[in-house]
Amino acid sequence: MPSYHAPIKDFEFVLNDLLNIQQYKQNLKGFDQVDENLVSSLLSEGAKLCEEVLFPLNQSGDKEGVKFDNGKVTVPAGFKDAYNTYIASGWTGFTCDPEYGGQGLPEVLNMPIIEMICSANLSFGITPGLTHGAYNTIASHASDELKAKFLPKMVNGEWTGVMCLTEPQCGTDLGLIRTTAIPAENGAYKISGSKIFISAGEQDITENIIHLVLAKLPDAPEGVKGISLFIVPKIIVDDDGSLGAANNVTCGSIEHKMGIHASPTCVMNYDGAIGYLVGEAHKGLRAMFTMMNEARIYVGVQGLGLAEVSYQNAALYAKERLQMRSVRGTKYPEKVADPLVVHPDVRRMLLTMRSFTEGARALSLMMALKIDITKRHDDEAERVKADEFIQVVTPILKSYFTDVGFEATNLGMQIFGGHGYITEYGMEQYVRDARIAQIYEGANGIQALDLALRKLPKNTGRYLRWVFHPASEFVQTHKDNPKMAEFTKPLYQAISSAQNASLWMAANGMGNPDEAAAGSSEYLRLMALMIFGYMWAMMAEVSLRKLEQNPSDKEFYENKLNVARFYMNKILPYHYGLLASIVNGSKSVMAMADEAV
Amino acid sequence: MPSYHAPIKDFEFVLNDLLNIQQYKQNLKGFDQVDENLVSSLLSEGAKLCEEVLFPLNQSGDKEGVKFDNGKVTVPAGFKDAYNTYIASGWTGFTCDPEYGGQGLPEVLNMPIIEMICSANLSFGITPGLTHGAYNTIASHASDELKAKFLPKMVNGEWTGVMCLTEPQCGTDLGLIRTTAIPAENGAYKISGSKIFISAGEQDITENIIHLVLAKLPDAPEGVKGISLFIVPKIIVDDDGSLGAANNVTCGSIEHKMGIHASPTCVMNYDGAIGYLVGEAHKGLRAMFTMMNEARIYVGVQGLGLAEVSYQNAALYAKERLQMRSVRGTKYPEKVADPLVVHPDVRRMLLTMRSFTEGARALSLMMALKIDITKRHDDEAERVKADEFIQVVTPILKSYFTDVGFEATNLGMQIFGGHGYITEYGMEQYVRDARIAQIYEGANGIQALDLALRKLPKNTGRYLRWVFHPASEFVQTHKDNPKMAEFTKPLYQAISSAQNASLWMAANGMGNPDEAAAGSSEYLRLMALMIFGYMWAMMAEVSLRKLEQNPSDKEFYENKLNVARFYMNKILPYHYGLLASIVNGSKSVMAMADEAV
Repeated sequence: MPSYHAPIKDFEFVLNDLLNIQQYKQNLKGFDQVDENLVSSLLSEGAKLCEEVLFPLNQSGDKEGVKFDNGKVTVPAGFKDAYNTYIASGWTGFTCDPEYGGQGLPEVLNMPIIEMICSANLSFGITPGLTHGAYNTIASHASDELKAKFLPKMVNGEWTGVMCLTEPQCGTDLGLIRTTAIPAENGAYKISGSKIFISAGEQDITENIIHLVLAKLPDAPEGVKGISLFIVPKIIVDDDGSLGAANNVTCGSIEHKMGIHASPTCVMNYDGAIGYLVGEAHKGLRAMFTMMNEARIYVGVQGLGLAEVSYQNAALYAKERLQMRSVRGTKYPEKVADPLVVHPDVRRMLLTMRSFTEGARALSLMMALKIDITKRHDDEAERVKADEFIQVVTPILKSYFTDVGFEATNLGMQIFGGHGYITEYGMEQYVRDARIAQIYEGANGIQALDLALRKLPKNTGRYLRWVFHPASEFVQTHKDNPKMAEFTKPLYQAISSAQNASLWMAANGMGNPDEAAAGSSEYLRLMALMIFGYMWAMMAEVSLRKLEQNPSDKEFYENKLNVARFYMNKILPYHYGLLASIVNGSKSVMAMADEAV
Repeated sequence: MPSYHAPIKDFEFVLNDLLNIQQYKQNLKGFDQVDENLVSSLLSEGAKLCEEVLFPLNQSGDKEGVKFDNGKVTVPAGFKDAYNTYIASGWTGFTCDPEYGGQGLPEVLNMPIIEMICSANLSFGITPGLTHGAYNTIASHASDELKAKFLPKMVNGEWTGVMCLTEPQCGTDLGLIRTTAIPAENGAYKISGSKIFISAGEQDITENIIHLVLAKLPDAPEGVKGISLFIVPKIIVDDDGSLGAANNVTCGSIEHKMGIHASPTCVMNYDGAIGYLVGEAHKGLRAMFTMMNEARIYVGVQGLGLAEVSYQNAALYAKERLQMRSVRGTKYPEKVADPLVVHPDVRRMLLTMRSFTEGARALSLMMALKIDITKRHDDEAERVKADEFIQVVTPILKSYFTDVGFEATNLGMQIFGGHGYITEYGMEQYVRDARIAQIYEGANGIQALDLALRKLPKNTGRYLRWVFHPASEFVQTHKDNPKMAEFTKPLYQAISSAQNASLWMAANGMGNPDEAAAGSSEYLRLMALMIFGYMWAMMAEVSLRKLEQNPSDKEFYENKLNVARFYMNKILPYHYGLLASIVNGSKSVMAMADEAV
C-alpha cells in the first residue's frame, strides 16, 4: 500500500527561503498577516486533510470508480464525507473574495494545498478545482446580481461549478460548437445542446451544480467570435436564494477511461435549460480563457503532485527492496543483497523525479506569487510585468509539468519492477491518473503552439524577456562566485541554447509559421529545461547561503545542492539535442502528402 | 473502434529490398525454398489470422479480463477458439525442428508474424510466445528423452510452456530464490516453492502446461551459481505420452494489473511437484538465459507491434478529425475545419511514431536474420560474428523498442485528445499493454547495465565493432554520393557521439563501474539512435536505387525517403544531449547518502 507525507519542509524552503514572501507584506494586499507561523499552520492543516482524509480514499476510489444509473451519478464510498470535511474547514474559499465569504488569502499559500490534494487524491481534487475556476470566471465577468446569487455557495462549497466547452465535433476548435442559446423571459436564455467530457458534470456530492456553458446566440458571428458564456444551474435558484425546480440539465452517460476513475466524466444534455449570460454576448471565449489560464497552472500542478507521491513511494521502496550487489562491490554485507538505492541507474531514476518535483515546486509557487502580484500589487508596472511573465510561463508550466510528471510516475513505477505494474502497490494508478493532464485544459501540443506562435512573438519578444532577463542577471551576479560556478556555467549554456532557439523561431516563424510550429514542442521543452536550470541555480545559491549560517538542518540544504548538481549535470544538457532538432526546421515534417502520412 | 492492417508492403521492403534474404539460399540451411512468393504467401496468411481472428478479440479481452476462481483460470471469451485456429495452421512450429514436428522455417520469416500478433492482440501472443521460449530451452539443454516426451506437443501447440523464475523476494536477483528441488524416484525431483508473476502459469486453453522452474538442489552453492532448471508439467506425462495424474502444481491467485488483462499473471505454488532436471545441476541460469536472450528480442517487438497499431489508428484519425485551420491558412476550404494532419505538431507526433516503427522493423528483421545465421550458416566465422552482433544489440533492442514503443503509444493516444483517454477508442489500451514490456524479461535498466558493463567491454570492445564497423563503412561508401549526403552526414555525427560515449564509458567504467552504470540508460539510447540512423540511411539508399528504376510504387519509396529525412532532422540530433549528459559522469548521481534519497 502506498503512503504520502506532505513535503512541508520543502514548501517552507521555497516560500520562506527562496521567495521570501514576507517581503511583500507592504505592497501586496492580504499579505500583511503572512509570516512563518501562518505558513506553517496552514501547511500542517492542509497536510492533515490530505494525508488522513483524502489519501486513504485514493486507491479505493480508483477500484470502485464512479457509477452511472439512469442519469444519476454516484461517487465512490467515502468521497461525499471527505468533501464535507474539506469544505467544513473553509478550503474552498481560501483565496476567494471576502465579499462572498472567502478568506482572501494569497494564491502562493493556496498552491501548496493544491499540490498536496493532487498527490493525495487527484480524482477528488478535480471537483473543487473546477469550482474554483468557475468562481473566478463568474467573479471576473458576471453581473453583480449573478455574483450575489451564485458565488457565496460556490465559495463555501455547498455548490460546485463545472466547465462545459467540448462537444463531440470539437475539443480544441471551439469555433465549431453547436450548442444554442435563445433569449427567453426575464433576460434569461434557453440553452440546448450536448457537451462531452464534462468533469464532475453530474455527481451526488452537492445539491446543486453550476454549469458554465459555451453556446451560440441566434445572431452569433461564425467561429470563435460568436461564442457566449452562460451560467446554467442544475437546479434553478430562486430569487431568495433557495433551490427551485430542476433545470433541463441531464447527464446522458459517463465515460470509461484510463484513470481518474473516481471523477465522473459526463455527457451533459441541455434541453432548453434556463441559462444566464455571463459578460457580453459573443465574448464568452475571452471570459472562459480567464479561467483557463489559471486552470492550466493547476493542471500542471497535477503532474507535479502525482510525481511527488510516486517519488516518495519509489524512494521508500528503493531503500527497502534488496536486490543484487552494488557494481562497486557489496555495500550492505549484513543483508542478503544491497537495497536498490545503491544502484546508479535506480538513483538516476529517483533523482530525475526529484529534480523535477523540487524544481516544479519552486516554479509553481513563483507563478502563484506572480498571480498574487497581478491581483494585489499596488504598483501597476509590477502587475503588468507579472502578468506578462505568467502569460509566457503558463503554457510551459502546463505542458512540461504534465509531460515530465507523467514520465516521473512511469519512473516511479519502473523502480517497483513487476510490482509496479500490478494494482496493489498503487504505482500504476499514478501513471494512469497523470496521463489525462497532458490532454485536458488544452492539449500539450496546443500549449506549445501558444508559446511559439503567440507568446514568443508578442511585443517583439518582450514577454520572453521576463524569463530570460532574471536568469541572465542571476548568472551575471554570481558568475564570480567560485562555489556557484558549477551551477551558473551550465545555466549560461542553457540560456544560450534557449536564446538561439527563440531567435531561430522568431526569424523563421515570421515568414513561415510552420517553421515555428514544427519545433514548438521541442522549443517548449528547451525553455522549460532552462527555466528549471534557473530555479535550481537560485535554490543552490540560497542553500549555500543558508549553509554558511551553519543551520541545524544542514542536511536539508546539502541535499538540495546535491539534487541541483544532478539536474545541472544529467538533465539540463538535453538542451543541446533540442536546439539541434529545432533548427532543422519544418521541411521534413511537412514534406509528405497528407494522405500518405 | 480501432482497426489494424498488417504492414505487408513494409515487411516485403525490408525482407526483399533491404536485407535481400534470398542471397542466403546457398549458405543458410532452410533458406533454399525462400523466394518472394513464399514470403508473400506467409505474410498474407499471417495477416489474415491477425486481422480477422486475433484483433477482433483485443478490446473485448481487455474489458472482460481473466477470471480466477478457486485455482481455476478462465481466459476471455473467444480466446480458446482463436488459439485452436492459430495452432491448426501450424504457426507454433514455424521455426521449430522438423524432428519434433516443426517446419524448420527461418526466424526472419517468423518475425513479421510475431510483430503482427503483438499489434493485433498482445495478451493472446504472450502464451505462444512463452511456449516458444520454453521449446528453445528444452531443445537446447534437455536430454533426448525429455525432448521426445515434451517437445512434439509444444511444437504443435497442444501444450503450452511457461517460465517460472520470479519469487516474491527476487525478480532481477535470481540468486535469492528459495524454491527447492529434492531428488526423488526414477531420477525425478520434488519441487517446492512459490513463484510470482508467472504469465500464463495457469489457463483453460490447453490440457497441459509445461513449467520451466528455477529451483535449488540441496547441495546447491549460494547465489546464482546454485540454480538448477526443471521441467514441471501441470499434468504428469506417462511414458507412453498420455496424460496421467495431476502434478502438485496449483495457481494461488492472479494479479490485477494495468494492462494485458487477457493474459493471466499467476502466483504458482509447487508442493512437492514432480520435476525433471534440464541440463546440468546448478547450471540452470545459463540454460534459462538461452531462452531469455531470444525472449528479449520478442519482448522488444511487443513495443514495435503496439506502436504500429497505435500509429495506424492515429494516422487515420488525423486525416478524419477536423479541427482548426493550418497555421499557414486554410488548406481544405470545403471542410468546416482542416484535418489534424495539416498541423505540424500532429505530424511531428505521427512521424516520430513512424520513424520508430519502420526503423524498428528493419532492425528486428535484421536481428532475426542474424539469429538464422548463428543457427544455420555453414561458415563458423559468420556464425560467431552474428552471435556477437546479437549479444550487443539485444539489450539495445529490448530496451529502446519498449521505451520508445511506449512513448509512441502515448503519442498515438495524444493525437486522439480526450477521445484517446477513454476506453472506447482503444488507444489507451495500447499504452497500458505497452507498459509491461519495459519491465518484464529484464527491466530496461538491467538491459542498459548489460550493455554498458558486460557487452561494451567484452573482448576489449570487439562486440561493439560489429555495430560500429558496418555503419562507418556505410558512411564511407556513400559519402561522395550527393543524394546521400543528407543521410550520411547526420549519421556520421551520431556515430561520432556514440563512439565518444563508448570510449568514455570504457575508460571511466574500468576504474569505477559506477561511472558506466550512471550513464548506462542514456548510453543505450544514444547507441539506439545511432543504430536507427544506420537503418534509415540504408533504407534511404535502397529507396533511391529503387526510384532510379522508376517503379510502379514510386510513392512508397518517396515516403520512405521522407520518413528517413524526418528521422535524420528531428530525432537523431538528440545524441548531442545524451553525450553531454553521459560524460558528466556519476558523481552527482552517487553523492547523496542512501537514506537521503
